[in-house]
Amino acid sequence: MRHGHLESPTITYETWGELNFQKDNGILLFTGLSPSAHAASSEVDPSSGWWEQMVGESKPIDTTKYFVICVNSLGSCFGSTGPTSINPETAEPYRLAFPVLTIEDIARSGHEVVKSLGLDRLHSVVGASMGGMTSIAYAILFPEIAESVVSISGSARAAPFAISLRSLQREIIQSDPIWNEGNYDVTEEPVLGMRLARKLGMLTYRSAAELEQRFGRELIPEERQTGESFGLDFEVESYLEAHANKFIGTFDANCYLYLSRAMDLFDVADHGGSVEHGLARVGASRALVIGVETDLLFPISHQKRIADGLVDGKREVIFHSLESIQGHDAFLVDMDRFRPILCDFFNCSMNQPGKLREA
Amino acid sequence: MRHGHLESPTITYETWGELNFQKDNGILLFTGLSPSAHAASSEVDPSSGWWEQMVGESKPIDTTKYFVICVNSLGSCFGSTGPTSINPETAEPYRLAFPVLTIEDIARSGHEVVKSLGLDRLHSVVGASMGGMTSIAYAILFPEIAESVVSISGSARAAPFAISLRSLQREIIQSDPIWNEGNYDVTEEPVLGMRLARKLGMLTYRSAAELEQRFGRELIPEERQTGESFGLDFEVESYLEAHANKFIGTFDANCYLYLSRAMDLFDVADHGGSVEHGLARVGASRALVIGVETDLLFPISHQKRIADGLVDGKREVIFHSLESIQGHDAFLVDMDRFRPILCDFFNCSMNQPGKLREA
Repeated sequence: MRHGHLESPTITYETWGELNFQKDNGILLFTGLSPSAHAASSEVDPSSGWWEQMVGESKPIDTTKYFVICVNSLGSCFGSTGPTSINPETAEPYRLAFPVLTIEDIARSGHEVVKSLGLDRLHSVVGASMGGMTSIAYAILFPEIAESVVSISGSARAAPFAISLRSLQREIIQSDPIWNEGNYDVTEEPVLGMRLARKLGMLTYRSAAELEQRFGRELIPEERQTGESFGLDFEVESYLEAHANKFIGTFDANCYLYLSRAMDLFDVADHGGSVEHGLARVGASRALVIGVETDLLFPISHQKRIADGLVDGKREVIFHSLESIQGHDAFLVDMDRFRPILCDFFNCSMNQPGKLREA
Repeated sequence: MRHGHLESPTITYETWGELNFQKDNGILLFTGLSPSAHAASSEVDPSSGWWEQMVGESKPIDTTKYFVICVNSLGSCFGSTGPTSINPETAEPYRLAFPVLTIEDIARSGHEVVKSLGLDRLHSVVGASMGGMTSIAYAILFPEIAESVVSISGSARAAPFAISLRSLQREIIQSDPIWNEGNYDVTEEPVLGMRLARKLGMLTYRSAAELEQRFGRELIPEERQTGESFGLDFEVESYLEAHANKFIGTFDANCYLYLSRAMDLFDVADHGGSVEHGLARVGASRALVIGVETDLLFPISHQKRIADGLVDGKREVIFHSLESIQGHDAFLVDMDRFRPILCDFFNCSMNQPGKLREA
């Protein structure tokens, strides 16, 4: 692993809402592996964001009340410095000369944005999936900053099963001859490797129960079948194909490798000798931890461990184990379960059925 | 999908023990995807077989008592006719000209062996994994033959999650340029595709809990690290690499595709309109169904469904849901749990601790 440093990295971010006079209504939002900083639509960019139903006026994270900042992770490819950025030393893209990236690096670079905006405290630091790791890392590294922490479908340390699944995705990408040790041309990306890796990713993001319910053993209608040996026969195969094709061209392969590995390397035990000692360093006075029972990649036992580790007798800790069948991706799709919980935590005035549902 | 027929296929088999005078002590054994007919060592071939601890003298399937027949599946590459065999019409290997293969084809060709050996009944038909599907198919197709049926870690119908995982393995193999639409030379196989597909297979054959227990987050010692970006850093990555490399050169890629797809296509509902109607056609008077709670690929709910479907008020049905952490592969490795159950069912006189353990 190549350790190193970056000279003056750029961190791209978007904000919604207004910072209040006391400068204490900021919410810092970290993303999963692949999203940009565009969490929600805005006047500047009216296109839908990746958490459109969660962030906005009269939404659970209400931007009439909070000043929401979403950062594009360091190492990503949507404006923040990453493997596709130009290395000032060589005037070429970093590619694999980019140093090893960690979740802590992403958390620290997010904090640079917070400081540059003039905030010295936050109402909350929030994230899901990789972002659920990053929000915990942030609350450990900067215990005085965020009053509360929200970690959704995250983990305090990557497990070997998740490491293996991500490792295989990376190997699939690296096996595409077009990848060329990371030196592919941006106009010709390792599309095959990315498509296959994405399919494997999808299978870890959803659940067997959901695929059963949505597709069962339904066959593709004959007119859509290709007739090839081992072509797509089942609807579930066609679904994965469509999703993987949609991903192609939207994300850089080297960035994918770095961010994927960053998750493997994450271990709260690096902060204090054990996961429990690490979690004890979290400074927030309130914590919301959510997990999904069908999550294969970040299993519910990991969120339970975070929640248990945060209980210290002083801090308020809310833990939800959700029955959603949508697996790891539930926070993006099962909004009926997630919205009321976030709404309650952020004391929103969202007027929707389920708002008052008890935990 | 290319339907067709085979002219005089060969089925390779091995036998252990002696057929008794009544010709009613035969046990027909179907394999999982990759094994040969060599289930256990013998005088002819003293090398260890794939179920060495289960089949033999004074073992749970006791060959001093039973006449055990194990067939190499039709479509495989260990002597039985498959995609690597010579197509008599072209004098070339079948490759993708091999017709679509089904689990029922494997069951029927196994029955040809039974008939050729002069048996018109069997004490039992037994199988695990793909073989657990095949033993059920056999008992449906030939309800008068086997007095009992044993289905281990099998399924009455492939679920979309398992189909997706196998489909992705096939696509990975097919994406290897060496595969060349199935027309690779036997001296130069699609090693890369097979290696990656095998890794994905391994991740579906074992469980997250087992990887956690065996490897945790242990790092490879520095002297064994390659220093490559995104090389192997964790012991679990090294384990998968070693297993995948061991598989290379032992199994033909096209055969893998055909057998893998055969599992996807299996649905007991094809026999009678529903899974329940299909299972009702099973003719055996005793059934043993075993599943493992950590099985990701053939989840325990599938074995439960088989067991429930076999209960008809007359048949004796024994169902075991095992707590093994070794997932789908437990029947090959967690012998302390599996041996006593098979021993009890086959009334063996095995003298080992655990033999008398209650179900």
